[in-house]
This record gives sequence, structure tokens and C-alpha cells, in this order.
Amino acid sequence: MSMDVEQQSTFRGFRDYRWDEVTNLPYKEDGAAPFKAISRQVLFAEPALGCELRYFEMAAGGYSTLERHEHMHAVMILRGHGQCLVGDEVRAVKPFDLVTIPSWAWHQFRATDGEPLGFLCMVNALRDRPQLPTEQELAALKTHPSVAAFLR
Amino acid sequence: MSMDVEQQSTFRGFRDYRWDEVTNLPYKEDGAAPFKAISRQVLFAEPALGCELRYFEMAAGGYSTLERHEHMHAVMILRGHGQCLVGDEVRAVKPFDLVTIPSWAWHQFRATDGEPLGFLCMVNALRDRPQLPTEQELAALKTHPSVAAFLR
Repeated sequence: MSMDVEQQSTFRGFRDYRWDEVTNLPYKEDGAAPFKAISRQVLFAEPALGCELRYFEMAAGGYSTLERHEHMHAVMILRGHGQCLVGDEVRAVKPFDLVTIPSWAWHQFRATDGEPLGFLCMVNALRDRPQLPTEQELAALKTHPSVAAFLR
Repeated sequence: MSMDVEQQSTFRGFRDYRWDEVTNLPYKEDGAAPFKAISRQVLFAEPALGCELRYFEMAAGGYSTLERHEHMHAVMILRGHGQCLVGDEVRAVKPFDLVTIPSWAWHQFRATDGEPLGFLCMVNALRDRPQLPTEQELAALKTHPSVAAFLR
């Protein structure tokens, strides 16, 4: 990836939630984690920035992996409506809303409103791998009625 | 700023190009550089990210400072149409277009289309101060007809 990104053009146009010179990638390289109908585009990843900006998009009914990690996420919703779990809180989100995902907070995005849900996610370039919940951790999360409804 | 940012809420709603808990700031603290009708909002600046995400908005006819610096900018247009100078190239920009401003490239944004122009700008948290052009550097830039027209 780094070679492509370093040689990218100064101006890259947007059209229909795709960008010039940006590849639409699988959400994760590793197929072990559960997710549905979600893709990833890396918009900026130059080493000099110290961080990366990615765009994730779920089709209607899609969702990201329920996971947590030490590194934090800085999110801006870009497209559509849906719901987001952070810690034990579930919220409706709409375009340009901001979501801060603190270190070690469980989190998941879901396109629950019958339309695609897309968001920008800024992360440190140096980051740890996500953890998936154990059965016990999942049960503890589901003791919150709103979280149980969100996770179905 | 850092105290406010570290204690911010997980969910911060958007409305009319303002965000919950985000202060609308002067574009620059230092009044020596030329600019017009532009404001700044810091959306994310947690130290753990290694970078910051800011939103800048110009009213119709407004412009950012013509400047350059060692650190690079990663920009996404968020609102409106206008023009952008990077190096010796002037381009029309529209929502969600990406602009990469390389190290030491002269750059300026202008809301030339009779409407506000707003953009996200991602930068490394550790960065150098901008330089303004000398008379000679400005004259050299204006040898490009499109740049001269852009700078008026």
C-alpha cells in the first residue's frame, strides 16, 4: 500500500463514495472476525502524517466487527444513518456526527436504517490488533437491554 | 485546548457545520498573516492519535493564508465549492474531494463560487510553523497565469 499512497496525485476527485486512485478493499484481511457487507478505502496513509484516514461503508443491514483494542478511533459519519455501540451505549448517528472510541471500549457500527452507512475513521499509524469478545464478555454486554437489542 | 478535548463526550452531534462541544475559533492566533472570513474548529486532537482533525470554513469570498511549511496536510472538502492552489496548480474542488498538500508546497483555499467552502484538514500533532511568501516568491508564483488569476 505505501508505495501507491506516496505516489498519489495532489487532487483526487470524489464520485459516488469512491475516490480517484483509491482501491475499494475488503474490510479485513483476516476472515476470522464476524462482519457483514462492509468495505474499506484508505484515503490518506502517508508516514509523515503519523496517522491514517480510512472510509468504511456498510450496505443496508451490514455491520462492522464488534471488537476492542488499545488504540482509539476518531470517527466522522459521512453517509447515511444507522447506529453505533461504544462501551455500553447505543446511539443513532447521522452525517457529520463525531464519535470518539476510547481505548479498550467495545464498539460496532450497524447500518440499521435500510440505507448504506459510511464513516471516516482516523487512527494512529502505529496500533495494536483488535480483540473479539469472549462468550462471557458478550453476555455481560447483553445485560444492557439497549445493547442486547442492538446486537440482536 | 487539551483538557477540553480529552474530556469530550463519546458522541458529539453535528448541526449546520457546528459540532457539540466544539468551539468556533479564530483561524489563526497570530494576526500577521493575511486571510479573510475563515474560522477553525478542532474536531479531534487527542495525543494518542498522533494527529489532529480540524474543520476550516470560509464564507463566500473568503480565503486561507497563502503559505508553506515542512509538514504535509491531508484535506477532504466537506462543504461547498471553490478553488485550491497547491504548488503551481489551481483546481476547482467540491464536497468529498481529497487534496494532498506535500511538504513545502505553497497552498491556499478560496471560496470563489459565491458560497461557503469548508474542509477537513488532518495534520501531524508535531509540526512546524508556516512561512509566508517573499515578494520574489510571490512574483515567481504569478508567472503561472492560472496562479496569477487565482491570487488576483
